[in-house]
Amino acid sequence: MNGNRTGPPASPDAIKAMLDRYGRRIDGLMARYLPEAGDPYLGEPIWHHMGGGGKRIRPALCLMTCEALGGDPERALHFALAVEVLHNMFLLHDDVEDGDRVRRDRPTVWVKYGVPNAINVGDFLLARAYSIVLASRLPSETVLKLVRIFSDTCEETILGQALDIASRARKDFDVRAYLKMAELKTGHYLVLGMVGGAIIAGASQRLVDSIWSLGRTLGPAFQIRDDIIDLTAGKGRGGEIGCDIKEGKASIMYARALEACGASDRRRLLAVMARSREKTTAKDVQWVIGLYRRTGCIQFAQDYATRLVRRALRVIEKMPGTGKKALKDLARFLVERTG
Amino acid sequence: MNGNRTGPPASPDAIKAMLDRYGRRIDGLMARYLPEAGDPYLGEPIWHHMGGGGKRIRPALCLMTCEALGGDPERALHFALAVEVLHNMFLLHDDVEDGDRVRRDRPTVWVKYGVPNAINVGDFLLARAYSIVLASRLPSETVLKLVRIFSDTCEETILGQALDIASRARKDFDVRAYLKMAELKTGHYLVLGMVGGAIIAGASQRLVDSIWSLGRTLGPAFQIRDDIIDLTAGKGRGGEIGCDIKEGKASIMYARALEACGASDRRRLLAVMARSREKTTAKDVQWVIGLYRRTGCIQFAQDYATRLVRRALRVIEKMPGTGKKALKDLARFLVERTG
Repeated sequence: MNGNRTGPPASPDAIKAMLDRYGRRIDGLMARYLPEAGDPYLGEPIWHHMGGGGKRIRPALCLMTCEALGGDPERALHFALAVEVLHNMFLLHDDVEDGDRVRRDRPTVWVKYGVPNAINVGDFLLARAYSIVLASRLPSETVLKLVRIFSDTCEETILGQALDIASRARKDFDVRAYLKMAELKTGHYLVLGMVGGAIIAGASQRLVDSIWSLGRTLGPAFQIRDDIIDLTAGKGRGGEIGCDIKEGKASIMYARALEACGASDRRRLLAVMARSREKTTAKDVQWVIGLYRRTGCIQFAQDYATRLVRRALRVIEKMPGTGKKALKDLARFLVERTG
Repeated sequence: MNGNRTGPPASPDAIKAMLDRYGRRIDGLMARYLPEAGDPYLGEPIWHHMGGGGKRIRPALCLMTCEALGGDPERALHFALAVEVLHNMFLLHDDVEDGDRVRRDRPTVWVKYGVPNAINVGDFLLARAYSIVLASRLPSETVLKLVRIFSDTCEETILGQALDIASRARKDFDVRAYLKMAELKTGHYLVLGMVGGAIIAGASQRLVDSIWSLGRTLGPAFQIRDDIIDLTAGKGRGGEIGCDIKEGKASIMYARALEACGASDRRRLLAVMARSREKTTAKDVQWVIGLYRRTGCIQFAQDYATRLVRRALRVIEKMPGTGKKALKDLARFLVERTG
């Protein structure tokens, strides 16, 4: 990584290559810390889920932050892996909760192994993620600090998911409620790896706090990008577009549309969102996407994400020490990805 | 508690009173460490689940063991609470996995708040349980040791649940497979509190290992008692009897019957167990209970539990130090409870 070197932002391809390189370090360790794929009780469903790829963005963020701040990324490997396992655990349970049938172009765990196994395997991954943090070869005080931020972040993320579940097809939802939900659900654990990497690198408390605060901007920005991708590229669900609309999920476009559109559009939007997934037609989805477009909700979302990133970049600019250039490149990359 | 005083076993009522007394210490702390009941996102479903009573056996075991071994039970309060929260988390997810609609004579969380919330709230309780262990006011090394055994136990229990799920209506199930499943699923976390209490009391590694080993006998004994209660008193599910049969759950009687009964009984038993809960009739359940009775499976289960308890008592007898009498009384009580 380039530390504080100034110059033009790194290209998305360069960052992708870097993420890949760091991400691969994780795959090796993962095989050692998860049950074997041949074990039919836990290993098989776990590897069905985790072996499907995934971009390993969060663990790479952890290792890169550690290195950018002058630490040895080898010492952060366990924490980075734990964050990746946690991420996958959330996805696994989310799929059951949302009724999603396809992930990374494969059937989801609950579809292939049943809901009881999907819940139970997710529970295992959560416990194992903690165990992996606890296996870090670091001084006891550091390990304790890491488990504590890990556990706090789990709680915040799960609270965010509770807000998300409660917001489905909600009439009085707005952009403010969206931002709160996204900060909790996405922000904390997006920066968890970075915070862990910083702690392992021996960063000051001020710097650690500053990285935490990035979650408040990067988290919602990341989530907004995810919302937009659902309308354009689909989210690895066999090319399906508009899953969030079918599920009645509270996206930023939904929040904005409720604020911005007229009474009759609003009524129809609420009706579509309240409809069950099975009963939502392709025409419904097209109509909602059209509404989002003509009322400027998609543009609003894009602009909002851009503003959030700008705010994040200003936070990074004020950080003490080295590594700012790299962090900025990463921040931009995170919210400019296209799939 | 009475330490090593010899004399007649304490009466079940005396032990119950003691459990109540220790259990009440937990209820006070619980209110401080769980979201408020007024919080609609997590608190309300959590208190719906946890406020329904529960015998607080596991936390009481933790505090009593700590005191019996000369420790200060006040120092074990956090760990005891964490074990109780973990226990409730397992019950909550089990109810979704088993499709159980009633627990402690109330509708289960998934029935009242939906499956997505039930999964999510369980996840929260698991993370919070870890956080509570981490909040223990003990030396860092002790806290780390406690989180590690806590996490290991979570994993073992969840693996046991995976075996349980895979054993439903299984044709080649036997008593040996049952014992393995029960040891994993029930044994580890039944003694987790006791082990934690012993560690906090400063017990030797030999004593700690010895308490762990009790899980191999007391766990299956406890589970067998649970299986029998399902056929006689019901398990707090509105007086419903034979739930395990309706669910096709692999009880010790089921394991034994597969080993002991003739071909035609076996065929009919398998057919009932494979039938979905909705399609299992009251007549089916009565027939299976009758089969268990006339082939001696219930007697077999009772005798097996008695042998396991005897083995547990011998392990306790060989333990170094004080507190044996109290531990023996507890061990007996655990597997002689009637509901």
